[in-house]
Amino acid sequence: MNLKLQWLRNKMSSLDLQGIIISNPINIKYLTNINAEGILVINPKENIFITDGRYVEDVHSILTLFDEIIVYDIKDISIEDYENFFMFCQNVGFEESYISYATYKEYLKKFKIKNFIETENIIEKQRMIKDDEELSNLNKACNITDDCFKYILSYIKSGMTEKEIAKEIDNYFSERTDGLSFETIVASGENTSKPHAVPSDRKIQERDIITIDMGCKVNGYCSDMTRTFFVGEPTEEMKCVYDLVLDNQKLTLEQYKEGANTRQITKMVESNFKLNRYNLIHSLGHGVGLEVHESPYINGKNEAILKENMVVTNEPGIYIPGKFGVRIEDTVQITKFGCISLTNSDKNYIII
Amino acid sequence: MNLKLQWLRNKMSSLDLQGIIISNPINIKYLTNINAEGILVINPKENIFITDGRYVEDVHSILTLFDEIIVYDIKDISIEDYENFFMFCQNVGFEESYISYATYKEYLKKFKIKNFIETENIIEKQRMIKDDEELSNLNKACNITDDCFKYILSYIKSGMTEKEIAKEIDNYFSERTDGLSFETIVASGENTSKPHAVPSDRKIQERDIITIDMGCKVNGYCSDMTRTFFVGEPTEEMKCVYDLVLDNQKLTLEQYKEGANTRQITKMVESNFKLNRYNLIHSLGHGVGLEVHESPYINGKNEAILKENMVVTNEPGIYIPGKFGVRIEDTVQITKFGCISLTNSDKNYIII
Repeated sequence: MNLKLQWLRNKMSSLDLQGIIISNPINIKYLTNINAEGILVINPKENIFITDGRYVEDVHSILTLFDEIIVYDIKDISIEDYENFFMFCQNVGFEESYISYATYKEYLKKFKIKNFIETENIIEKQRMIKDDEELSNLNKACNITDDCFKYILSYIKSGMTEKEIAKEIDNYFSERTDGLSFETIVASGENTSKPHAVPSDRKIQERDIITIDMGCKVNGYCSDMTRTFFVGEPTEEMKCVYDLVLDNQKLTLEQYKEGANTRQITKMVESNFKLNRYNLIHSLGHGVGLEVHESPYINGKNEAILKENMVVTNEPGIYIPGKFGVRIEDTVQITKFGCISLTNSDKNYIII
Repeated sequence: MNLKLQWLRNKMSSLDLQGIIISNPINIKYLTNINAEGILVINPKENIFITDGRYVEDVHSILTLFDEIIVYDIKDISIEDYENFFMFCQNVGFEESYISYATYKEYLKKFKIKNFIETENIIEKQRMIKDDEELSNLNKACNITDDCFKYILSYIKSGMTEKEIAKEIDNYFSERTDGLSFETIVASGENTSKPHAVPSDRKIQERDIITIDMGCKVNGYCSDMTRTFFVGEPTEEMKCVYDLVLDNQKLTLEQYKEGANTRQITKMVESNFKLNRYNLIHSLGHGVGLEVHESPYINGKNEAILKENMVVTNEPGIYIPGKFGVRIEDTVQITKFGCISLTNSDKNYIII
């Protein structure tokens, strides 16, 4: 059995769970490397992946005997099979955030579960700390993202649309990686005031401000970076906002280390912004791994403590409705004494 | 208020619901045209969309006064606001398949809901029947998909990889539509035996069999079509399987009409396949609309009755592990006396 499944079985034992149903597909990928629809059922004797006809052949081709995972086609499972899976289990865990209320009721009945126990994201919590192989994949994804940014700076010309630029980025990633980690954001001019802008047909003009937020996946692991830059000399107001964002991004980097309280760091940025009459309208950062947004969530509400080998973003932003916005984002690895930036693109004024 | 929200309020009234929380983003898009993360809260007085800072500006730009929807940034909502939303509601509906067990418990507490009632997909059921505007969008999406297929047949050459072909399809759609309705499948040779194959680096060769399953979105509405075709003359076995799939696809088209029982139609195809020692390993079809897979689900288990202006697929397939597979799929509109195919690509042997 692989190390991650062994870890899970130890964890279950410490929580007095004799069985568990894993429903979050990312957790299933993390534990087994299976990338298919289905659920993972762990009982005292077996690890079982229940999928459907579309995936059976594919899942078999990924697994080896060493994995010790039995694959079932859901249509071959009888009512009795379901009742047998957890027959000798007093307590069975489930992922309360990943099954719907309807599915919860269905499982209770179908598996005849005695005590169905919420597991409070045990796997997501474990996923926050990356092992060497995961760190290597994350680093590769961030390096390719830096390369893509360098390339795209040379590619952009006045008259191109946001959509064209986004497509070029998407092609860059699709040729070199498993694909995008999220829909690429290319926003220009007043569109930069929307943190979540969708690339439009707006054409790049002289004296534009441009924000690009992009990432790719390597072996399933994501990168995430944002840069804001200028076509020709920025206005004084733009420079002012840019400096404020960048200063706070750097201050945050200095604070990121094992033991740091993410709520306090966010409060620091919020208060620096407020002193200048701006608000931080989104999170300061988030974990990055098999998901581009995962625990820990770094914002003013959530009280997380950073730990060694967490990989998180640092992305303060200021948005002035109808005018423009600035966001600068790196993906970084937390260490005992600070952090190592996996993103290495220039953060000074970039003028194209 | 728009017609769809008016319909919902009438429906709620018939179910004795004074309030409802809509969580399924597709249902929110259907009812309001809002395309953003958040929930729609309907109480006796107001329609409220609760979202976060990233989307507020964008949602405001979509809505008009006529929509009568109030937009809240989640961080401006106090504990008292939550308790007030449903203060005068005896019964509040929720979408049991679209909120997690964890969210269910959270809402119960936060909104102080007296009776929280499962609503059994009332909106999904309504979405099955398309109005004229929806039909027009679906038809446009299917037409562009036909055009793309014609183009791609002329594009494919021996030596190209599945990935290259998939990328060309993706580019075709991204230039003309809102984008893909699902990840394009291009499978060749033995890869066609996987119904859910992911495009690989396998190169197209002489005497290959190729399956392409693809679709795009127009104003959010999806198309879905599959064709299987040949590089050079197919083998006798391939012809035999192709004929069997095509005959059953045509038989199914003849059965598709208002009042038809989808379980019976599926059983017919299953039994025709079994007579030839093959199995139907996936659904025969599914509804198509804002989602590429939506109700009604057409398979051997689900007992759905077809109705006028449903739009569904018809996609029998046979898969011989390690050898090859054949699937042929159209998207069709159900009428009182039959069905109209929105997909119009050739279904006879295509040899490139």
